[in-house]
Amino acid sequence: MESIKTPFKGIIKDVKGRRACYKQDWTTGLSSGVRILAPTFYVFFASALPVIAFGEQLSRDTDQSLSTVETLASTALCGIIHSIFGGQPLLILGVAEPTVIMYTYLYNFSKGRPELGRELFLAWAGWVCVWTSLMLFLLAIFNACDIITRFTRIAGELFGMLIAVLFIQEAIKGVISEFNMPSLENPKEDKFQFQWLYTNGLLSVIFSFGVLYCSLKSRQARSWRYGTGWLRSFIADYGVPFMVLVWSALSYSVPGKVPEGVPRRLICPLPWDPVSIYHWTVIKDMVKVPPAYILAAFIPAIMIAGLYFFDHSVASKMAQQPEFNIKNPSAYHYDIFVLGVTIMRRKMVKSAKQCMKEQKSDSEIYGRMQAVFIQMDTSPTPHTDSSVAKELADLKEAVMNTADDIEPKKGKFDPDKHIDLYLPVRVKEQRLSNLLQSLLVGVSVFSMPVINMIPTSVLWGYFAYMAIDSLPGNQFWDRILLLFITPGRRFKVLESSHASFVELVPFKSIALFTLFQIVYFLICFGITWIPIAGILFPVPFFLLISIREHILPKIFHTKDLQELDAAEYEEIAGAPRSRSLSLKEKDFPSHYGQDNGDGFYDAEILDEMTTSRGELKLRTVSFNEDRIFKVHPGDGDLIPREPQ
Amino acid sequence: MESIKTPFKGIIKDVKGRRACYKQDWTTGLSSGVRILAPTFYVFFASALPVIAFGEQLSRDTDQSLSTVETLASTALCGIIHSIFGGQPLLILGVAEPTVIMYTYLYNFSKGRPELGRELFLAWAGWVCVWTSLMLFLLAIFNACDIITRFTRIAGELFGMLIAVLFIQEAIKGVISEFNMPSLENPKEDKFQFQWLYTNGLLSVIFSFGVLYCSLKSRQARSWRYGTGWLRSFIADYGVPFMVLVWSALSYSVPGKVPEGVPRRLICPLPWDPVSIYHWTVIKDMVKVPPAYILAAFIPAIMIAGLYFFDHSVASKMAQQPEFNIKNPSAYHYDIFVLGVTIMRRKMVKSAKQCMKEQKSDSEIYGRMQAVFIQMDTSPTPHTDSSVAKELADLKEAVMNTADDIEPKKGKFDPDKHIDLYLPVRVKEQRLSNLLQSLLVGVSVFSMPVINMIPTSVLWGYFAYMAIDSLPGNQFWDRILLLFITPGRRFKVLESSHASFVELVPFKSIALFTLFQIVYFLICFGITWIPIAGILFPVPFFLLISIREHILPKIFHTKDLQELDAAEYEEIAGAPRSRSLSLKEKDFPSHYGQDNGDGFYDAEILDEMTTSRGELKLRTVSFNEDRIFKVHPGDGDLIPREPQ
Repeated sequence: MESIKTPFKGIIKDVKGRRACYKQDWTTGLSSGVRILAPTFYVFFASALPVIAFGEQLSRDTDQSLSTVETLASTALCGIIHSIFGGQPLLILGVAEPTVIMYTYLYNFSKGRPELGRELFLAWAGWVCVWTSLMLFLLAIFNACDIITRFTRIAGELFGMLIAVLFIQEAIKGVISEFNMPSLENPKEDKFQFQWLYTNGLLSVIFSFGVLYCSLKSRQARSWRYGTGWLRSFIADYGVPFMVLVWSALSYSVPGKVPEGVPRRLICPLPWDPVSIYHWTVIKDMVKVPPAYILAAFIPAIMIAGLYFFDHSVASKMAQQPEFNIKNPSAYHYDIFVLGVTIMRRKMVKSAKQCMKEQKSDSEIYGRMQAVFIQMDTSPTPHTDSSVAKELADLKEAVMNTADDIEPKKGKFDPDKHIDLYLPVRVKEQRLSNLLQSLLVGVSVFSMPVINMIPTSVLWGYFAYMAIDSLPGNQFWDRILLLFITPGRRFKVLESSHASFVELVPFKSIALFTLFQIVYFLICFGITWIPIAGILFPVPFFLLISIREHILPKIFHTKDLQELDAAEYEEIAGAPRSRSLSLKEKDFPSHYGQDNGDGFYDAEILDEMTTSRGELKLRTVSFNEDRIFKVHPGDGDLIPREPQ
Repeated sequence: MESIKTPFKGIIKDVKGRRACYKQDWTTGLSSGVRILAPTFYVFFASALPVIAFGEQLSRDTDQSLSTVETLASTALCGIIHSIFGGQPLLILGVAEPTVIMYTYLYNFSKGRPELGRELFLAWAGWVCVWTSLMLFLLAIFNACDIITRFTRIAGELFGMLIAVLFIQEAIKGVISEFNMPSLENPKEDKFQFQWLYTNGLLSVIFSFGVLYCSLKSRQARSWRYGTGWLRSFIADYGVPFMVLVWSALSYSVPGKVPEGVPRRLICPLPWDPVSIYHWTVIKDMVKVPPAYILAAFIPAIMIAGLYFFDHSVASKMAQQPEFNIKNPSAYHYDIFVLGVTIMRRKMVKSAKQCMKEQKSDSEIYGRMQAVFIQMDTSPTPHTDSSVAKELADLKEAVMNTADDIEPKKGKFDPDKHIDLYLPVRVKEQRLSNLLQSLLVGVSVFSMPVINMIPTSVLWGYFAYMAIDSLPGNQFWDRILLLFITPGRRFKVLESSHASFVELVPFKSIALFTLFQIVYFLICFGITWIPIAGILFPVPFFLLISIREHILPKIFHTKDLQELDAAEYEEIAGAPRSRSLSLKEKDFPSHYGQDNGDGFYDAEILDEMTTSRGELKLRTVSFNEDRIFKVHPGDGDLIPREPQ
């Protein structure tokens, strides 16, 4: 660990790196004028909704000690600070499920301790945060980020799966709770008589499933057959918040004879309520916390610090390669959005393609090119006339050239050079959109009265949606499903887009690896159920580093392990898309130009690769050299290995 | 109309035709032993459910004058008679939506007439039936069936669409009714107080959407990725009745505090109730009907006779070609079922293919071969090794030979000869399964106590399911959807299986023709809303014959009209299926044999072509000769015409 011997090295390097372009970060933002509002609003809607949902969960689990007011306020503050001082101007900050759980543990702990109790919970939590920040400083100073490289996909997959399952659990708990009396309420009230509790429960079933179903559908809008491109993209980008709006509106269609409070809605203190005001002064109480507990706060602090560090690492692993100075998640938002309103579709499609490249390693870029190429190559079906084949041949030529001169110098690929060569348009890197959206979040704190009109059941549906939306693309999930496909049906996997391991790893190894992961996952999930010690649930994730390094290689073939637990992503598209490509580019020459074709095509790819919150999904890449040859037709490489 | 000059000609011909094979109809049935139970049970479940649903609708619309007891009993009786004396032993008889509507008009009419009233409604309806049977006799004697040839697809499509819309209407009316007081009930009862009416309504929303969603999903089970072939086929065949069972069971999970009668369930008189017994003796009252009304009964009788005749014509148009002595709808049940339990999968697949051929004209057989061929032909993608291409070449060869020697002698194609040449297995024609299933229906009359456990809301969901399940394949519906696809997205239609008109008719003509059909449909639907005169709703369908013959040809190009309003069916499959075919047959050689491949493949086609009740869906064929060349690769014929 020579990185420990050279403190501040990483920080200094980053600061230097950013200082160079800091001024420009603002000017570009300002120069882009009104168009800046596009990504701003997209990101706002994508990020505000989870914050509200987590706020509600938090206020239930901490008996309203913390609520949506706090989550919104902190998100806004952190966002503003980060947009001004952050090294990564386009990164979006937000509350995460594990954080909520952590606070729940803290609350339950302090509630059980007479010395703390509900009163001093926040003060004590304050101390936890102090310790946490200290540790994060240390981690930064001693370049701990270098450890990033030692977290492999398996950890990220498990983490993603854990969060998804926690979401589902939250959704189910939520819907069930709608049938029962809420705590701290007066059971005499009319709305808590059996028939109305039951009505409330039934309504929540309808609302939550309604939101879930509509959100899942609207997410796929981009690939709908009907409606104009603009409408489809708009629905795909804003469908989820829109559905929350629609179903909240529907919830007011219950007849007047139903008592007030059925269906249940969010009950958050307003920011100008004394309780909320008080939370700004918690620092005063921090001195009241007994010294023993100030020290004890160190243990949860380790967990939280570790969790944040790990979370960030996973994100980086997914979204950032140190070689690239351009930060991408927001580029996604930006591009998706611009795709949405179809401003200068073609150019933006290219920029979308570009950042899809940038945010991935060079081998991944190659993978993408390869995928595109393969899609191109399947298109000369008997239905398309020979001219297609000819045109595609040139395309193939171009792609292969690029590919070939990238492949050798893996890891040394300079995006700028290649992009300038092949892709004229650039991603607008700037801090303005992030600042604006953080300000919007801040403003929305004062829209609590409006937010309190949302029925809680709508949020349960949204939790379920977040879970289901995050699963596809998590290779762990894909592999679990693969276990349930009878051998005779596995060809169906090859039809759709799929990761390379399906073809390159013996099914037996896939199964074994997946079973190991399932068991490990159940352990992690089980720990979260332990009352107080559950706070240790991040530990297994840290252990994974050494398990991956020392135990797994003993069990699995190195090559297979690379396939199943690689760092990046490559996808081989199945026939359907390739077919559509060939059709839209040739069979409708007059009214369906290249640009459009591209546009819809990439927009649909973007959907595949990001969650509704614009987060990237975990993906895998093959480092197997013979993938290069896989792009040559007719070598039958796609015939999968038999289970052995 | 020389057919009028030769009365009895048709009947005598048919009788002669059947007498020859009558004995064998029974022996084959008996010889097949236990296996006969397979089609029996499949048909029973597929036919009993609609009968129950219609019975419920009838009992609501006629204030319980008629109910499920009557529909079940009559279905059983007619079935038994038909299975013994019917000319078409494998045809399934059942109640149809239009019949229910007809009886509703009759009821409302007689209810409004003091001379008849509720008391004499059945007696009067009896007279209507007498007149109807008389007219049907006359139609048969004077060979009216020859008119069949003059009903074109447009009529069938409109009829199918009307029924689908009536189903949806019934479902919506049903769900709404759950929120309101049922007629003829005591509003003082606890279960009719607002909160319980509302609870009942909410439950019915959940149950009906649950049944609808689950049924639609289970119908697609055959193409699921997961589960064994046996399980998938079982779900696909019995999923719908199973879902009715499941949701009925779920309806008993409502807590005990909910009053009896929430959710509402079927309330049919038991067959041994006096009211039901009385219905067997209605004939005594028929003399009480005033002579004027006995004559008046002639008018509705015309409508009903016409309706039945038309309905039968449409069915024949779909399922029977006079050249073929083999009757197919049941063959469908049979094959689908046997596919289901995967007994001798391969042979049955072949028989499935066979009857898919038999029930269509020769040009259709050719179309099918063509489609299969095209699918074969698209498969040599770069992913499959060259040996595939080679094998497919032979296949192509075989197909084309068949095709070529069929195409010339259109309409003179003898299935037996060709089938014996290419497809060894025969459909088991017999009367036993039909007799047995009719007896089962008869027995189920006495299971009324069990049937009365089904919540009404489950039936509303089932009505909606019947509607949605019947739409795909109705080209009218497909064309309506096409209107909503932006030109840039029309390639998506070509990806999936689609009728030939999409490629051969200018979009403008398609749009115009569809708009005409929509307007005409709205007229037909509008008529059904007219209180009593609504009974005339079949008239527009009869008018269609002359409209089609004299007006439409003036508006549309004959060739286009042939495409849009042809009598039979041909489908060009898009890439997805062809891809899967290529993959399953070659890429998984070891664990995914030809038979399986075939099996799943055809099973999935059968789903496309039949409703859950085993009814055939309307399809179209191209009579355009240059379709022959379309099968030659690379001639670019699939490039659709531009809108002009």
